[in-house]
Amino acid sequence: MEQKKSSPSCIGIVGLGLIGGSLGLDLQSLGYEVHGLVHKHTTEKKARERKLAQVISTDPKILSDCELIILALPLGELLQPSKTLINALPTSATITDVGSVKAPILKTWSKLHKHFVASHPMAGTTDAGVNAGRKNLFKDRPWVATPEANTDPHALDKVRKLAISLGSQWITTQADIHDQAVALISHLPVLISAALLKTVNEENNTSVAALAKSLASSGFADTTRVGGGNPTLGTSMMANNTAAVLEALKSYRENLEHLEKNIIAQNWMQMQKELEQTQLTRPGFLREIKN
Amino acid sequence: MEQKKSSPSCIGIVGLGLIGGSLGLDLQSLGYEVHGLVHKHTTEKKARERKLAQVISTDPKILSDCELIILALPLGELLQPSKTLINALPTSATITDVGSVKAPILKTWSKLHKHFVASHPMAGTTDAGVNAGRKNLFKDRPWVATPEANTDPHALDKVRKLAISLGSQWITTQADIHDQAVALISHLPVLISAALLKTVNEENNTSVAALAKSLASSGFADTTRVGGGNPTLGTSMMANNTAAVLEALKSYRENLEHLEKNIIAQNWMQMQKELEQTQLTRPGFLREIKN
Repeated sequence: MEQKKSSPSCIGIVGLGLIGGSLGLDLQSLGYEVHGLVHKHTTEKKARERKLAQVISTDPKILSDCELIILALPLGELLQPSKTLINALPTSATITDVGSVKAPILKTWSKLHKHFVASHPMAGTTDAGVNAGRKNLFKDRPWVATPEANTDPHALDKVRKLAISLGSQWITTQADIHDQAVALISHLPVLISAALLKTVNEENNTSVAALAKSLASSGFADTTRVGGGNPTLGTSMMANNTAAVLEALKSYRENLEHLEKNIIAQNWMQMQKELEQTQLTRPGFLREIKN
Repeated sequence: MEQKKSSPSCIGIVGLGLIGGSLGLDLQSLGYEVHGLVHKHTTEKKARERKLAQVISTDPKILSDCELIILALPLGELLQPSKTLINALPTSATITDVGSVKAPILKTWSKLHKHFVASHPMAGTTDAGVNAGRKNLFKDRPWVATPEANTDPHALDKVRKLAISLGSQWITTQADIHDQAVALISHLPVLISAALLKTVNEENNTSVAALAKSLASSGFADTTRVGGGNPTLGTSMMANNTAAVLEALKSYRENLEHLEKNIIAQNWMQMQKELEQTQLTRPGFLREIKN
């Protein structure tokens, strides 16, 4: 079908933040011509200095020759894409996204473009913005795609090859399975961690509050890391994956109450068993992590 | 009062695990003669190889010349000390402990020894046992003492000088304030982190559970670190600080429910505000921590 000229056509990236910028750096290293679309002239200038793509502009026309376009935008912008952006996407191009929630993305985008592939590269640091992109961000990380029955298999294959060329582990699953899994391992942790910070912040015995600040150590730092992270990202997780987050939270509250009952009953043998089980559980979730 | 020979008398350490072994290494570096009492001959052998003290034995008599003795034992053993140990402590010596809960320790020990000082060096790693001790464990870490009205001020001062010589930050407070603060920043995190592991472990949709294992990343690893830790230590925290832990947990559940209400009401502006507040709260608890 594709009767393009033999020289490779470009890969477009919309947004050159942490994910988009990192994609730009790696894809150039792999020999692709990368066209990066940004919102602002200040970003354009900085992105050029950092060489995040060969062609960088605020003009959507730079996407017109791209056969694969990655929408590396925040979830809010992915779910309410501008008309300008939609019109700038070539009808024949494969389009994919990087959003962390997949069912609402599919609902929006499967109607907008017939070669759309919903995907989620699971890579990230706490950094954000045009200065955050870095090489090898995706290496050995999962890249999840959530195709539907009517997803174009050729487009899916293009995204798969892209992910594999970046060193990612390619995983396909259903959008709702993805959204429930990330609710458990990513969105729920933000909530329970934030609730811990809220609890210490609202401690009304001032002597206890002051001493708690002096004594908090690495255990507290670890447990509160995600709850003390980017508020906009956290809110976006809850707002766009509401049903799955509430379901995970319901299950969490039941489990916490179960542990509490052991304390009230002073059933220390059972508490010991519970904590032996959680100690056994954790390593199964750390296959890619060193500690 | 003390008419000892001019050469410095020894410092005794009961138990040469992470805390006791680390104390032994540092105190020897500072020029003290250290006598280490251990339970088992196998530990004695290993502790000698590691040079955790100059004199190492399973015989409590090695404490008889020590003017300062540190009980570096697990909380359970501190709260139910053996008669042999109690009898081996010289009446004139200063005795201190390293237990992570102070009110029950004081209740037990203020009756057992008139120069007892309740203290808690806030240092630790996930390691334990005779191989865990290492140099400089206490440097720049808080060392909390919880004197009562009848605590011997000379004994308190000896422990203070010891803590400062090890590079610790000396803090004194009331035992119940200490216990409430550690419930908030140390014991509560174990519970909420364990409940998260229990939630993912008991997920009954097998596709979601399998995908969650593949996708769990550093955020999940951080949030679950303390809940996947030593089960005996975790149980001991709950068993020996029960009232403060239940109080902290009650407050935590209310705060979590408050966040949940915002999700149910889809009040994303309020959720954003809450997460902005938790983001602001966290750095106040990380004065000693680099990340």
